[in-house]
Amino acid sequence: MAATHPKAPTAQRLAQGCWSAFWDYETPKVIVVRNRRLGVVYRAVQLLILLYFVWYVFIVQKSYQDSETGPESSIITKVKGITQSEHKVWDVEEYVKPPEGGSVFSIITRIEVTPFQTLGACPESIRVPNTTCHLDADCTAGELDMLGNGLRTGRCVPYYHGEAKTCEVSGWCPVEDGAAVSHFLGKMAPNFTILIKNSIHYPKFQFSKGNIAHREDDYLRRCTFDQGFDPYCPIFRLGFIVEQAGENFTELAHRGGVIGVIINWDCDLDLPSSHCNPKYSFRRLDPKHVPASSGYNFRFAKYYRVNSTTTRTLIKAYGIRIDVIVHGQAGKFSLIPTIINLATALTSIGVGSFLCDWILLTFMNKNKVYSHKKFDKIADTPDRCVGQGLPSSESPLQDSTPTDPKGLAQL
Amino acid sequence: MAATHPKAPTAQRLAQGCWSAFWDYETPKVIVVRNRRLGVVYRAVQLLILLYFVWYVFIVQKSYQDSETGPESSIITKVKGITQSEHKVWDVEEYVKPPEGGSVFSIITRIEVTPFQTLGACPESIRVPNTTCHLDADCTAGELDMLGNGLRTGRCVPYYHGEAKTCEVSGWCPVEDGAAVSHFLGKMAPNFTILIKNSIHYPKFQFSKGNIAHREDDYLRRCTFDQGFDPYCPIFRLGFIVEQAGENFTELAHRGGVIGVIINWDCDLDLPSSHCNPKYSFRRLDPKHVPASSGYNFRFAKYYRVNSTTTRTLIKAYGIRIDVIVHGQAGKFSLIPTIINLATALTSIGVGSFLCDWILLTFMNKNKVYSHKKFDKIADTPDRCVGQGLPSSESPLQDSTPTDPKGLAQL
Amino acid sequence: MAATHPKAPTAQRLAQGCWSAFWDYETPKVIVVRNRRLGVVYRAVQLLILLYFVWYVFIVQKSYQDSETGPESSIITKVKGITQSEHKVWDVEEYVKPPEGGSVFSIITRIEVTPFQTLGACPESIRVPNTTCHLDADCTAGELDMLGNGLRTGRCVPYYHGEAKTCEVSGWCPVEDGAAVSHFLGKMAPNFTILIKNSIHYPKFQFSKGNIAHREDDYLRRCTFDQGFDPYCPIFRLGFIVEQAGENFTELAHRGGVIGVIINWDCDLDLPSSHCNPKYSFRRLDPKHVPASSGYNFRFAKYYRVNSTTTRTLIKAYGIRIDVIVHGQAGKFSLIPTIINLATALTSIGVGSFLCDWILLTFMNKNKVYSHKKFDKIADTPDRCVGQGLPSSESPLQDSTPTDPKGLAQL
Repeated sequence: MAATHPKAPTAQRLAQGCWSAFWDYETPKVIVVRNRRLGVVYRAVQLLILLYFVWYVFIVQKSYQDSETGPESSIITKVKGITQSEHKVWDVEEYVKPPEGGSVFSIITRIEVTPFQTLGACPESIRVPNTTCHLDADCTAGELDMLGNGLRTGRCVPYYHGEAKTCEVSGWCPVEDGAAVSHFLGKMAPNFTILIKNSIHYPKFQFSKGNIAHREDDYLRRCTFDQGFDPYCPIFRLGFIVEQAGENFTELAHRGGVIGVIINWDCDLDLPSSHCNPKYSFRRLDPKHVPASSGYNFRFAKYYRVNSTTTRTLIKAYGIRIDVIVHGQAGKFSLIPTIINLATALTSIGVGSFLCDWILLTFMNKNKVYSHKKFDKIADTPDRCVGQGLPSSESPLQDSTPTDPKGLAQL
Repeated sequence: MAATHPKAPTAQRLAQGCWSAFWDYETPKVIVVRNRRLGVVYRAVQLLILLYFVWYVFIVQKSYQDSETGPESSIITKVKGITQSEHKVWDVEEYVKPPEGGSVFSIITRIEVTPFQTLGACPESIRVPNTTCHLDADCTAGELDMLGNGLRTGRCVPYYHGEAKTCEVSGWCPVEDGAAVSHFLGKMAPNFTILIKNSIHYPKFQFSKGNIAHREDDYLRRCTFDQGFDPYCPIFRLGFIVEQAGENFTELAHRGGVIGVIINWDCDLDLPSSHCNPKYSFRRLDPKHVPASSGYNFRFAKYYRVNSTTTRTLIKAYGIRIDVIVHGQAGKFSLIPTIINLATALTSIGVGSFLCDWILLTFMNKNKVYSHKKFDKIADTPDRCVGQGLPSSESPLQDSTPTDPKGLAQL
Repeated sequence: MAATHPKAPTAQRLAQGCWSAFWDYETPKVIVVRNRRLGVVYRAVQLLILLYFVWYVFIVQKSYQDSETGPESSIITKVKGITQSEHKVWDVEEYVKPPEGGSVFSIITRIEVTPFQTLGACPESIRVPNTTCHLDADCTAGELDMLGNGLRTGRCVPYYHGEAKTCEVSGWCPVEDGAAVSHFLGKMAPNFTILIKNSIHYPKFQFSKGNIAHREDDYLRRCTFDQGFDPYCPIFRLGFIVEQAGENFTELAHRGGVIGVIINWDCDLDLPSSHCNPKYSFRRLDPKHVPASSGYNFRFAKYYRVNSTTTRTLIKAYGIRIDVIVHGQAGKFSLIPTIINLATALTSIGVGSFLCDWILLTFMNKNKVYSHKKFDKIADTPDRCVGQGLPSSESPLQDSTPTDPKGLAQL
C-alpha cells in the first residue's frame, strides 16, 4: 500500500517511519472462548503447575538459591583416655597413630608384637606359599618372594615350632609369624573421648562457622556429645561412635575397621547463621564381609641400638581408624537461579494451553467454528487441503482486505 | 465447511490434506498499538531485561560457561630453615611433623619435654580431678581414670614438688606434669621458608596447571613469594603466612594454631591458559577464643632401650599447623548453559508484554477499543459477562464468518 | 461499550461478570500460511532444535538428571613386597611412610643415610652459600644461616674431604653432605603390589559402593588389576602404575616423584548399581622439568641413645609417592532439571518462528499481504508512519468494528 501512497517516500521519510514503528507496541490477538468446562480444565492445569513450582521447586528445593558444595574445612582432633593390656598401661601417645591430630587417625586396639628383630637369617614364615621344604635343594638361594620376609639363603631349616621345615631367609629375624605375641588393649577403648574441632568456610558466600560452642566457662571439659541436646559439644566417646555406626565394639577392636564420622553442614544462609548447624553421622567405611581383606591393620616398628646392633620391635597394629569427613551445601538467594526458575515456571504454565487447544479443536462440538476463529489461512498456491471450503476464486493476490478474506468473500 | 464440500472426502484425501496441513506455517496474529508512551514503556522494559542478561548473566556471571569445581589437586611441601632453643640447634627433621611433605604438616615452635619416662609407679598429676589424697584409703587400687596417666596402685604418695600428696599410679613415670621442661624453638621460625608445589587438573576440561614457574635457571632457589609481583614463586616465609593471616607470631608460636594456606584456581578456560593463575590467601582455621580448646598441640615420643629397659622421651609439641587447601572453579563455553540462559532471556524479555498489556487494557483511555481489538470472544452459552455490548442475537452458531462476527453483524 | 449498556451495572453484577470471565479460555489467534517452502523451513528448523535437545541435551548430557559430584570416599591402602639394596633386605615397614595405609603414602626407592649424627661441632656443608673460608675471621660466631645446618662457632675448619675449608657449625654432626651414603632399594620395587580399598558414598542419592569384588574365595589373594578384564581386583603392581603414568621407573626411583592413582566413579543411578564401576587412571602429578625442585624426597631420622648420648641416623628418602584421588559424579532422574530443560526445549523450538516470520515478512513475494494479515494496527494519534495506506479519516474512536477497521473501511 506504500506504493499507492500519493506522496513518493524519500529515504528520510522511510527512516522516520521505521523509527516511529519501532515504538509501536505489539500484543498477540487472542480468542476468548466462553466455555465453562474448558475454562475449568485450563485453570486447573495452570493451578497444578503453579502449585508444583511454588511448593516443590521454590519451597522444598529452594531453587531461588545459588548454592555451593564442599566447604573448605579444617579438622583438629584430640583423643583422650588410658587403657591397659595384661601387663602394661597404654597412653594416647602409644595407641594413636599418627599423633598430629589430623582428620584421619587410628586408635590401636590390638597389637601383635615381634620384639628383638635383628638382621640375620631365620626360617621363612610357613604362611608364605612354597616355603615348606625337606632338603636344601628345595630352596633356591637368592630368590626373593614378594610375599615373603627375606632373601632365601638356600638352606632348609626347622620351623620355630612344630615339626615342619621351611626355607631359610635373610632379613629381619625372627619373622613375624614365628614370634609374634598378641596384646589386646581395647578393654577401656569404648571410654576414650575424641574431640573433633571443625571449622568450615564457604568462600562464595564468605561464611565461616565452627562446631564448638563459644562459651567462657569450662563447659567443654565436662560435656559429651548429644545430637539432639547440644550439637556444639563435639566430644565423642569411641564406644558411642562405634555403636552409632551399628558395629560390635569387641569384634571391631579385634579385626580393625574404619569408621567415618561425617559432619554435614547444610546451611540456608538466607536464615540467621544460628540455623546453620553441623549434623553428625557415623558409618562403617571399609568393606566388612570381604574375606581376603576385611579389617584394618598396619605395621610399624620401633628401632633400638643395643651394643652397636640395630634391633627393632615390629608391631602389627589392628585398630579403629576414624575418618572425619566434612561435606555440606550452602544456599543463598541469588537472582540468576530465581529468574531461570521463574521463567521456566511461566513457560510451563503456558503448557496448559497446549492441552486446552487440543481439547478445544478435537472434542468441543463446535470445533469447526473455533478452528475458523483461531486459524486464519493464507494460501499462495491453489488450495490443496481437502475439507476446506475456500472458493477457488479467492486468491490472496486479489485480497484487498488483508485480515479477513474468507468472511468478506462470503458476504 | 468440510461438510459442505461437494466431493465427499475419502480417507486417502483426508490423509493427503493433513500431510499438506503439516507443512503450513503458523504465526500468531498480532495487534500493533500506535501509542508512543506505551511503546516507550515496552521498549524500556525490554532494554532493562536485555541489559540485565547481557551484562550480569553473561558478562559478570559467565552463564554461557559450563563449570567444574574442586579440581584434582596434588601438593608437595618442603620446609627449610634452622632454629635454636636455649641450648640446642633444631633442624627440619626435628621440628616438622609428619616429615613426608604432604598438604598438612606442623612446624613445632615450642615443646614440653618429659625425658626418661619408664614404666613404673609414681604420683598422679595434680591436675587430674580427684587425685589429691591424704591417706591410702582415698585411692582405690585398680581404678583407671580416663583423664589420668595410669592405673591406681592404692597408695597415697607425696607429689613431685610442694606439700601435696596424690594417688600413686602405675604407668609411664614420671608423669608429664611433674617433670616436663619447656623449650621455645620459635625464635627463628618466622624465617623458615615453605615451598608449596601444587598441580591441579580439571578432568572435565582436560586442563592441568602447576604453580611453579617453568624457568631453566635457579630462580626458584632465590625467590620469595609476592602475590602482586610473581605468583609463580611459591616459596613462603612462615612469618609472612602468619602475618597475612592476621595473627601475632609470638602468641601463635607459644599456644599453637592452624593456619590455612588457601590456593584458589579460578580459571576462565576460554582465555589462554596464562590467564589461569593461582591466588593465595591465608586464614587462621582453628577457633581462637574458645577457652578449653584453643591452640594446637600434640604428643609424640622417642623410644630408647638402655640396659634392656625401655625409656621414652615424651614431647608435647605446640606448633603452627599449615593446612594447604586447594579449591577452584573452571568455566568453559558450553552450548547447554548458553541455550538455557538464552531461552530464559528470551522468555524474560516477553515479561515486558505482561506489564504493557496490563497498562494497555487498564489505563489507556481507549481501552475498550483495544480490548475489543485484542480479544475475540466466542460464547457457546448465552453471554453472561456484564458490561459487554454483544447483541444477544449474535450466537456463534449463526456466525458464518468465523473471524469477525461482531463487526460484520453491526454492518 | 459497557457505558452504553441499557442496564446500569451494579457491583454485584460486575463481580459476577469478572468471575465468569475468569473461567474463559484464551488462546492466541493464529495465521496459517499455506506456503510449502516456508513450511519446510519451519519444520526443518524445529526438527534440528528437537534433535539437538533429544540427542545432545537429553541422551548425551543426561540433562534430565540431578547430579552430585565429589562422593564421600574412604581409602585403605596396603603395600606388599620385599626388596634389597647392596647389603640389606628391606621390608614394607621400612620403605612405606607413613605406615598407616591412608590415601597418600610414599614408597622409598633410594636413601641417603647419614649415620651416627650427634650434637656437636663440625664443618658446614660446602653447598651452603658463603661457607667456604680461609680464616676464622670469615666466619661470624653466632650466625644462623637458614639454609645451613647449624649455628656458626666462628672457626674455619678443613672440610670432610678435599682441600677446602668451611665455617664450623654447631648442630647435628657430621652434616649430611659430608657423610651421606646412598642406597638404592628400588631394584625389586616394580613388583611391589598395592591394594587400594575404596568405598564411596553419594549422600544425596543414598548410594554406596566399594571397589572390591564380593567373592567368598581367596580370589583377592591371587588376582592383579586389569582394567578391561576385572575392575574389581584393586591390586596394582607398582611397575604397572608407573608405566601407565608414562614414566621411566628407574629414573623415577632415583629422583622421586608423585604418581596419582585417580579413581573415577561416574554413575548413572537410573541404571542398576552394577553399571556404576570405578575407572582407574594414572598420572604423574609433580612438575617434571622444573630444575630447582623436581623429584620428591623428604628427610626423617631414627634416634638412638648409646651411653647416655643421643645419636640419630638421618635418612634423606627419595621415593614414589602415591596419591589416591577419588572423584566422580552421580546422576539420577529428577523432575526439576527435566522440567527446566523441557521448558527450554519448548521455548527454543519457538525460535524457529522468529526465523520464519522474518523470511515471511522480508522475502516472500506477497509480504504486504502477509504483513497485513499478521499485524492489525491501532493508532491513537494521527498516523505518522509513512508508507501506510490508512485513510486519515479512520480514527479508532469512530471504529465500531474493533477487529478490522482497514478491511471494512475499504469495502
